[in-house]
Amino acid sequence: MTSSNTLFGRMAVFHSHSQPQVIEKQVVPTPTVQEVLVQITCCTLCGSDIHTVNGHRSVATPTVLGHEIVGRIVKFGEAHPRIDFAGKPLQENDRITWTVIDRCRQCFYCMQNLPQKCEQLQKYGHVLHSVENAFAGGLADYILLKSGTDCIRVPDNIPDPIATQASCSTATVAAIYRHAPKFQTVFIFGAGVLGLTAAAMAHASGAEVIAICDRDPVCLKRASGFGAGALFDADLPTQAKELSQLTHGRGFDLVIELAGTQQTCAAAIPLTRIGGTIIFAGTVSPTEPIPLDPELMVRRLLTIKGVHNYTSLDLQKALDFLENSGKNYPFELLVGETFPLSEVNAAFERARTTRGMRIVVRP
Amino acid sequence: MTSSNTLFGRMAVFHSHSQPQVIEKQVVPTPTVQEVLVQITCCTLCGSDIHTVNGHRSVATPTVLGHEIVGRIVKFGEAHPRIDFAGKPLQENDRITWTVIDRCRQCFYCMQNLPQKCEQLQKYGHVLHSVENAFAGGLADYILLKSGTDCIRVPDNIPDPIATQASCSTATVAAIYRHAPKFQTVFIFGAGVLGLTAAAMAHASGAEVIAICDRDPVCLKRASGFGAGALFDADLPTQAKELSQLTHGRGFDLVIELAGTQQTCAAAIPLTRIGGTIIFAGTVSPTEPIPLDPELMVRRLLTIKGVHNYTSLDLQKALDFLENSGKNYPFELLVGETFPLSEVNAAFERARTTRGMRIVVRP
Repeated sequence: MTSSNTLFGRMAVFHSHSQPQVIEKQVVPTPTVQEVLVQITCCTLCGSDIHTVNGHRSVATPTVLGHEIVGRIVKFGEAHPRIDFAGKPLQENDRITWTVIDRCRQCFYCMQNLPQKCEQLQKYGHVLHSVENAFAGGLADYILLKSGTDCIRVPDNIPDPIATQASCSTATVAAIYRHAPKFQTVFIFGAGVLGLTAAAMAHASGAEVIAICDRDPVCLKRASGFGAGALFDADLPTQAKELSQLTHGRGFDLVIELAGTQQTCAAAIPLTRIGGTIIFAGTVSPTEPIPLDPELMVRRLLTIKGVHNYTSLDLQKALDFLENSGKNYPFELLVGETFPLSEVNAAFERARTTRGMRIVVRP
Repeated sequence: MTSSNTLFGRMAVFHSHSQPQVIEKQVVPTPTVQEVLVQITCCTLCGSDIHTVNGHRSVATPTVLGHEIVGRIVKFGEAHPRIDFAGKPLQENDRITWTVIDRCRQCFYCMQNLPQKCEQLQKYGHVLHSVENAFAGGLADYILLKSGTDCIRVPDNIPDPIATQASCSTATVAAIYRHAPKFQTVFIFGAGVLGLTAAAMAHASGAEVIAICDRDPVCLKRASGFGAGALFDADLPTQAKELSQLTHGRGFDLVIELAGTQQTCAAAIPLTRIGGTIIFAGTVSPTEPIPLDPELMVRRLLTIKGVHNYTSLDLQKALDFLENSGKNYPFELLVGETFPLSEVNAAFERARTTRGMRIVVRP
């Protein structure tokens, strides 16, 4: 039974990669306990959304895609403490973003600071769509944040379509650097949004040598503005001398793999110095295995780490970085065209042909 | 020209794996600067010495083998500070051990806390034998410790043939744990001296689950005394259920590879829990590469680390462990027969057939 005060909201429902997304309308729920109802102001299309729509990534369907989201608080559940993860007060109409994951805060993985592997995990933009759970993706008018989600106020100087990325690519890069030891030289595979963010964060932290590699010359060229001092195309063997000179022949302290291919993962190992660290964060899809030489791992004291998603603290660090240093790098170059929610299918059509840039959907 | 005060010392010189070692006599040098002349009281034969004598490990020859050494100080160089690495005073006749490496303390790797990769590295028991550098191995009456070597006094309650291991296996295990994050569950491949030491250190640190695997039932059986609560033979697939139950099906926080084979390196990965760490420290000889799945590394947030040798602090921690907790574990079981230096070839003959135990040579 609906009264005249009943609020309705739209969402774009994805059924399969062979069908266009369909706009539906549902009754907007009232937040309870520590939930927060948010009116979405901006959602950017992440690479994984595009993979899903292209049929290269399997998800439970139907679902509402979109997980890089910013919005304004409409209403708090009665038990919400009205402070954000950083400890700042929150009120209605505040502009916020939040962790892509909702977690239970008490299972084994939550207690190990691995909330992204929570036994009760829900990831916004990855939820099976139902009447009961209709507002759980970013391509919608509203989203209902559950009690296990940490919100953070978005600083005023971060534009919407850059703040949206904080909760996906920027926070993931913050997680990568949390897992990395101190470094002066870094090599980054991939000059997409993640790779350029990784270059900028390394630059802001004072790294001496920032090298980046991409097969796409347009993406690669952008990297200079993000602090990368050495640009390499994908044909690294022909550039071995230039590469070697950057580190006096020793190899890099840190190598970050964000291109997501078997070739770049394999190429990362010989680029790393004795005692150095390799971080794999791009391979979220299956690849062929790479060959790993156990004797080399031991004699060169190498570390290989996989990083997937992030914690609430990483999200806070991502927003701190964008607030304090974002203006030093041309993040606006990574923001593409804006579409209304009603044109979500056109937005994905455009995103398919726009590499290294985020297409924007605003309800 | 030699005076009547000239001191001579013997050493066993290794020329090739097809010839017996030959006892030579040389004039014992006088230590200068921060050098220390030590009279060797005990040297134990490490697995790598045995590999060399068996022809499975190539070294520069001629050389004096033996790097697990304890001795008494005969004389200090004029600039020696007469304190040990732990800050305790040192005097003539003190019983000491020392880092297996001598390093420059100022190159890139020394500055990165990787003294074992020093650009001027010398490893005792691995030095090209010459008249000028005749006392650089443990199978000798004396050894001349260079200025870049850290000495530590051996606590009185550690017997010679256990203290010798401190500077090789015990310190390497301390380095492994320095590289490992906090853990409650550990799986160890290999129940040789390193593996049993790893079990004992895990036990002393309060680990909840200590599992160990070895194909040799005699070695495996010893592991109970060293704190291992779960023993597995090499046929792990048939024991999958028992293995899984140890960690509630999640996998181990930490997996340590000390068996040194391709198979055990590969088997380590699926035994590790999400967010867990795998340490390779046994593969100091070539093996076939193992297949590594980059997507699995990312989605399971795995870390693989190679550890080779150790730092001075690891050696100090090794001696602290042996002093404070060594008596709780039957390290004496790992000490085999004693031979005089003149019977060094017989000592190696015995070592060939004695797995998981150290044969002792006393000048």
